[in-house]
Amino acid sequence: MQDKKILPRKVTGFWELEPEQELVFENIIQKIKNVFLRHAFLPLDTPVMEYSEILLAKSGGEIDKQIYRFEKGSTDACLRYDFTVPLARYVAMKEGELTFPFKRFQIGKVYRGERPQKGRYREFYQCDADIIGNENLSLVADAECISLYEDIFNELNLDCQVEISNRKILYGVIESIGEANRFQEISTILDKYEKIGEEETLKLLFELNLDNKKCKILLDFIKIKGNFGEINKNLLKLSKNQTLVEGIEELKEVDQHLKNLSVNNYIFNMNIIRGHNYYTGCVFEVFLKDHHNMGAVGGGGRYDNLANYFSSKKLPGVGMSIGLSRLFDILQQTDLINKQNYQNNNVAIIPLGDTLPQCLSLSSKLRKDGISCEVLFNDKSFKSKLKDANKKGVQTVIIVGENELKALKYSVKNMSTGEQNLLTYEEIINLRR
Amino acid sequence: MQDKKILPRKVTGFWELEPEQELVFENIIQKIKNVFLRHAFLPLDTPVMEYSEILLAKSGGEIDKQIYRFEKGSTDACLRYDFTVPLARYVAMKEGELTFPFKRFQIGKVYRGERPQKGRYREFYQCDADIIGNENLSLVADAECISLYEDIFNELNLDCQVEISNRKILYGVIESIGEANRFQEISTILDKYEKIGEEETLKLLFELNLDNKKCKILLDFIKIKGNFGEINKNLLKLSKNQTLVEGIEELKEVDQHLKNLSVNNYIFNMNIIRGHNYYTGCVFEVFLKDHHNMGAVGGGGRYDNLANYFSSKKLPGVGMSIGLSRLFDILQQTDLINKQNYQNNNVAIIPLGDTLPQCLSLSSKLRKDGISCEVLFNDKSFKSKLKDANKKGVQTVIIVGENELKALKYSVKNMSTGEQNLLTYEEIINLRR
Repeated sequence: MQDKKILPRKVTGFWELEPEQELVFENIIQKIKNVFLRHAFLPLDTPVMEYSEILLAKSGGEIDKQIYRFEKGSTDACLRYDFTVPLARYVAMKEGELTFPFKRFQIGKVYRGERPQKGRYREFYQCDADIIGNENLSLVADAECISLYEDIFNELNLDCQVEISNRKILYGVIESIGEANRFQEISTILDKYEKIGEEETLKLLFELNLDNKKCKILLDFIKIKGNFGEINKNLLKLSKNQTLVEGIEELKEVDQHLKNLSVNNYIFNMNIIRGHNYYTGCVFEVFLKDHHNMGAVGGGGRYDNLANYFSSKKLPGVGMSIGLSRLFDILQQTDLINKQNYQNNNVAIIPLGDTLPQCLSLSSKLRKDGISCEVLFNDKSFKSKLKDANKKGVQTVIIVGENELKALKYSVKNMSTGEQNLLTYEEIINLRR
Repeated sequence: MQDKKILPRKVTGFWELEPEQELVFENIIQKIKNVFLRHAFLPLDTPVMEYSEILLAKSGGEIDKQIYRFEKGSTDACLRYDFTVPLARYVAMKEGELTFPFKRFQIGKVYRGERPQKGRYREFYQCDADIIGNENLSLVADAECISLYEDIFNELNLDCQVEISNRKILYGVIESIGEANRFQEISTILDKYEKIGEEETLKLLFELNLDNKKCKILLDFIKIKGNFGEINKNLLKLSKNQTLVEGIEELKEVDQHLKNLSVNNYIFNMNIIRGHNYYTGCVFEVFLKDHHNMGAVGGGGRYDNLANYFSSKKLPGVGMSIGLSRLFDILQQTDLINKQNYQNNNVAIIPLGDTLPQCLSLSSKLRKDGISCEVLFNDKSFKSKLKDANKKGVQTVIIVGENELKALKYSVKNMSTGEQNLLTYEEIINLRR
């Protein structure tokens, strides 16, 4: 044994739950997986690393300071920062073999080496589902991705609302005021509207030398929100720009598909911009109902071409994602999940006297009957073991004493009520069913 | 769009399954998880990185060439190469809060930057379960870890055999021939016996200047194998060394606990050495029955002190692990799993004519009734869609035509038999139950 001890600590900003929380978190993941499978999406589990050449293709090889990069021997690789680049790499590699539209989901950890702060992790769970077409892809795909949210949040017993817009409408409005060449700058400002408010937005737009009339159109636009009938009417009042009308037509079709899919919890909201440049059609974000102020817990949209850095084939797609670590944080903060979500259903078996052999056989029998259990086999006193069971949140304790064995029965203690009964094995099994 | 394309390729030696295989693999993981939970182990999901100081504590900070290491800003961290060091770090951090014995499992990827070759990955799945005691830990824990194998392989419909030894017996034998100071060199040679055979083993032992008599004892020892009665008799013939006898006593107790736990598929085998120096008591390996020649698919053992680099508390433990990527490879090579394990149970819904809206409502209804399905909504011909469904391995296709809608029925095609029937929604649901 050595004398100098190293202070045990976790890498700052990395995600690590207590085992009881982890159990709740893994249940959430399992439920989400089930929804994806029900929608006939298949799982893809790409490596945690991609070659730097692949991962940095978008940036022309420039190293983003947020990226964890390794050079080891001849390998120059980075930790993935999202699942979209790995998907693009995968689809480009396999495009000859895949059946399109290709539907895959991926749930796992991604890495961003940013300064850790509240609600921002360097390692966190992300959950993505995408539908990739070959040359073209019906708007049904957009509706299906949006519909996943309602199914997922229903499965989790949570209410959500999806807010939908379309980048063509945004482009059309900006084009209609003659500012198409400054589309990026303007949309970046509008994207902040919710956060910074009207006054600050106006100030930033003025700084771009937009006149009052143009600013008014943009601010009117960003406030348009409602069902399809409402936004259609209000948008057409603003402009009849061709791209804008095209965007409206797309939303109309998506609205129709969503109705056919019995999706209810959605609204159109022109305030949904989505910063990423690669979105080219529908864009959407999802919020927890009654917790809109916590911000979006996921989002996604339509892109023209998934893999243009790796393939000359046109692969349009639409994707939805959920920030799982962020969602879990919000659920804990808002008490939507709490300790009660972790119910320790294990049975603890405590020997009283020399009954360890019988306790072990009992545990084996119970497990074969599908009951999770453990024998408290350590050297502690009976009383300490009861305390341990209590600390672990165990609801049912089975006490195996010599008297009980003679009577072919077990003392079963309900840890909540303190009630204790002498039961046969069959009665225990029935109790747990 | 850019013209120069980057060749899409995966980092060499990293694990990536096709989605259909991934589904089978994830089912295996889920089944293993269920066994751990039934044994009251809780999940722990540590970060993929640990500070280098922590990860390299064992080697005194020396960088192993197999380790992926980053330096980013002030962070000096490595990718985990196993789950034991992260467990030690976690338990040392939380030792005041945990209830001992602490039982946790972890299933995930670990990283070794070795030269990739057949059956050796740089990123692969590992599965560990450990029981950690505080100051002391009953041998019941060893039996419970061993019993996990039988439960897990039963759950996977596979036959396994666990082979068990004890490092104290090995030490005792070597001590009994007066070679205790060369314990490490000798056990390293004996560890290779299975691989290199008797002749080569003898040669290596001779190179250590061991005489004929000593070599004979070691070779007799390494061949001792059987139930407890058999090995007990044969070991005591070799030596009455005190440490050896202590090891036998431990195996006797573990044997008794295993019997009480109704574990059948195990044997004692002195050939099980386990290279790792930190094992101090029972050691074991697990093999697929009828595929012993493929090598162990997992192993583990007892260690005296989990976290001696991080804590002055004595934390003895016992752990079992399964090399999941390796196991999956073997299952595929031996045809124990194959394409048939992936049964595509999704229903494909194909519109015939202008019935897309009705197809979408049908899909939503089916999913609510728990049936996985997808609408083949793309622009292809009806015939191409049938082909796609076939390529995906879909068993059931529902064709929604206008005539069918009038009759309030659906054409249901069995893709294996080609049979097609006109069924009501209720009949479809019943068909799938």
